[in-house]
Amino acid sequence: MVEARVLRNIGAAAGSLLFATAIAAEPAYAPGYAEDRAMIEDLQARYAFALDFRDADTYASMFTEDGVLDWARGVVTGREAIRALISTLPSRAGFAAVADAPGLRPAAARHHIVNQAIRIEGNRATARAYWFQFGNDNPEREAELGSYGHYEDELIKIDGQWYFTKRRIYNEQMDERAATGANPAW
Amino acid sequence: MVEARVLRNIGAAAGSLLFATAIAAEPAYAPGYAEDRAMIEDLQARYAFALDFRDADTYASMFTEDGVLDWARGVVTGREAIRALISTLPSRAGFAAVADAPGLRPAAARHHIVNQAIRIEGNRATARAYWFQFGNDNPEREAELGSYGHYEDELIKIDGQWYFTKRRIYNEQMDERAATGANPAW
Amino acid sequence: MVEARVLRNIGAAAGSLLFATAIAAEPAYAPGYAEDRAMIEDLQARYAFALDFRDADTYASMFTEDGVLDWARGVVTGREAIRALISTLPSRAGFAAVADAPGLRPAAARHHIVNQAIRIEGNRATARAYWFQFGNDNPEREAELGSYGHYEDELIKIDGQWYFTKRRIYNEQMDERAATGANPAW
Repeated sequence: MVEARVLRNIGAAAGSLLFATAIAAEPAYAPGYAEDRAMIEDLQARYAFALDFRDADTYASMFTEDGVLDWARGVVTGREAIRALISTLPSRAGFAAVADAPGLRPAAARHHIVNQAIRIEGNRATARAYWFQFGNDNPEREAELGSYGHYEDELIKIDGQWYFTKRRIYNEQMDERAATGANPAW
Repeated sequence: MVEARVLRNIGAAAGSLLFATAIAAEPAYAPGYAEDRAMIEDLQARYAFALDFRDADTYASMFTEDGVLDWARGVVTGREAIRALISTLPSRAGFAAVADAPGLRPAAARHHIVNQAIRIEGNRATARAYWFQFGNDNPEREAELGSYGHYEDELIKIDGQWYFTKRRIYNEQMDERAATGANPAW
Repeated sequence: MVEARVLRNIGAAAGSLLFATAIAAEPAYAPGYAEDRAMIEDLQARYAFALDFRDADTYASMFTEDGVLDWARGVVTGREAIRALISTLPSRAGFAAVADAPGLRPAAARHHIVNQAIRIEGNRATARAYWFQFGNDNPEREAELGSYGHYEDELIKIDGQWYFTKRRIYNEQMDERAATGANPAW
């Protein structure tokens, strides 16, 4: 954040030569930004499907071998540990164990990823996005908003594919996971 | 799914030469992926507007002449039948008839499309996305989460434009429309 | 809208030569559409972060010097006035003043932007998108759907960066801000 803030201040000073009101430094978009962004958006979409459908292999494949998932229950390091985590989630209804519900189809939670701010520098990317989760683990299988927050991601491109090296998950429904401080984007 | 699973297994085997832990096969992104993806994202956005504002002509124009819409109330085949369906929806509040509500403005439902996993092969695309619907058909016109699910789409590009050849709509609020089985993405 | 409607009708007539059923005019996508769209999507994402984290400098920097924000409480004209508006919002919980809540962390509202229909003509863009807001300003800090609506945006590209020249915000929870009339997209 300090670096971003410095850049912003420099940008504001330079901008004042061009505009009556100084503006913050804009992101730089290199040629090919759209191609990289498109692949990262696709990765994020596939991530949500893999998570909600408990496709542990696909989910884990989106992290580097030493990738880090920093989520509500702690820090999980390495693709194999991440795969094991997803493999052991008890149901598709959420992250907690769910009691049997005779006569009801299984409940199904869904995670949604939007507002993707993506900064790409060579084969590295820094990304921010909002997430929210819907569920229907109730007797009527009614849609309910469960939780929301944001992601802070670091990614790397290897042989033309993007991987998460780190995903940190903020959650506005948890004291210890709620965002604090300044704008995490730019 | 079988084909995808085979590719994934092949990928996992090949991947093990490069990585300590085998990984699932990644999608292949041909040059121009971003351009096609951008047009399909635009199509999906316009679809939601056309649906919610009951713009039957525009909605129908997004399907091929023999396009198929497989939704909550059955399978509708052909652009003309799809246009007729949207033309006859009773109001913008939802898909059911809505009673008069004197003194209240019309209720307005909104469909949202996120998590777009898009695979493009030449002039064909296979797409998966999540959808959810908000509504306010209540005396206070308060925002309410109505339903959610996912789309399974097939598309074709003709003269530089993408069209749905088939959209199948899954809905987690309906027994017969809820997703079952494996990850529908990849 | 009139122009769009005329184009649509012309398109429908021309289309009938190729298709048994006439179709609406499709959008034209110039080469480079994906690059411009990617930058505008990034702008929209950064906008949501800047709004919700009350980063007034960054928020204002996304408008041109004479940019217009037409929102729930009126029309704000010019970057400096827009910056001042965001600077004076009372908390991150929403747009109204929030009472102290001893023992609770601050509430945090989040705006989400989806369904982006984007039309680009040279260095000008016309955009439509849906938005919705979640909040947790309640004793349990539970996630709640607050409101939803759509944006009607005009943008300009200057020196490779996109800016809002005008954003008009429709809100389906307010009589005077609810959408009326035909499809605002195309």
